[in-house]
Amino acid sequence: MIKKVDHIGIATSNLEEIRELYKHILPDVEPSEHVVESQKSKMLCYDVAGVHLEFLEPTSDDSPIAKFLAKGRKGMHHICFETDDIKADIEKMASEGCKLIDKEPREGMNNTKVAFIHPASCGAVLTELCQKS
Amino acid sequence: MIKKVDHIGIATSNLEEIRELYKHILPDVEPSEHVVESQKSKMLCYDVAGVHLEFLEPTSDDSPIAKFLAKGRKGMHHICFETDDIKADIEKMASEGCKLIDKEPREGMNNTKVAFIHPASCGAVLTELCQKS
Repeated sequence: MIKKVDHIGIATSNLEEIRELYKHILPDVEPSEHVVESQKSKMLCYDVAGVHLEFLEPTSDDSPIAKFLAKGRKGMHHICFETDDIKADIEKMASEGCKLIDKEPREGMNNTKVAFIHPASCGAVLTELCQKS
Repeated sequence: MIKKVDHIGIATSNLEEIRELYKHILPDVEPSEHVVESQKSKMLCYDVAGVHLEFLEPTSDDSPIAKFLAKGRKGMHHICFETDDIKADIEKMASEGCKLIDKEPREGMNNTKVAFIHPASCGAVLTELCQKS
């Protein structure tokens, strides 16, 4: 069952620009830096009372984020919900006809399991589920 | 000071489609319905552990949401942070060179004060601040 909004993923071509801008928007939040192998991206993460703003800059031209940016898009990319049983959730969604990008949970960052649901089943919002270990 | 993510605003041309889709995505959340005069829109709101997903369907062609959709865009439209002092926040941001859409707080829904910050100052994310009374 979905418990909360875990993070909002945001595509950018320049994390250092984000760092400078958000000194004014979120001056009290110190961002953390990460490498996200699965997205071929590096990340700047702002924790706003438990909901993370995850800014992603691609490190490779075949990164999903690079492809998003190449279409002339930028800004909000996906929303992620935390669930306590990702396998049950996606099996139920699949049985109800939802269009899943990941039919099985796969490994995410920090020992999480993740799965993406297609925007067509979420009102044009690319949606991720994650379960923490 | 910004305290939390209040909501994520999402543009749609069809709230009834959203209602059907989200029976599968958020089956345990009963959405509430609202009219948002300032956005010339109607809204379906899902409360996910205190963070709201606000789906907005325009009710007029000159709605900001209608203009967004007319550009061929849809899905995530803006993010809103709750602050405990919106006037101080936007004055500080303005003094630091942030590009504000609203230079003064204005009335929002339910006796809130709101102000929008231009995406150019937020990494291509249209950003709202709100203060509850």
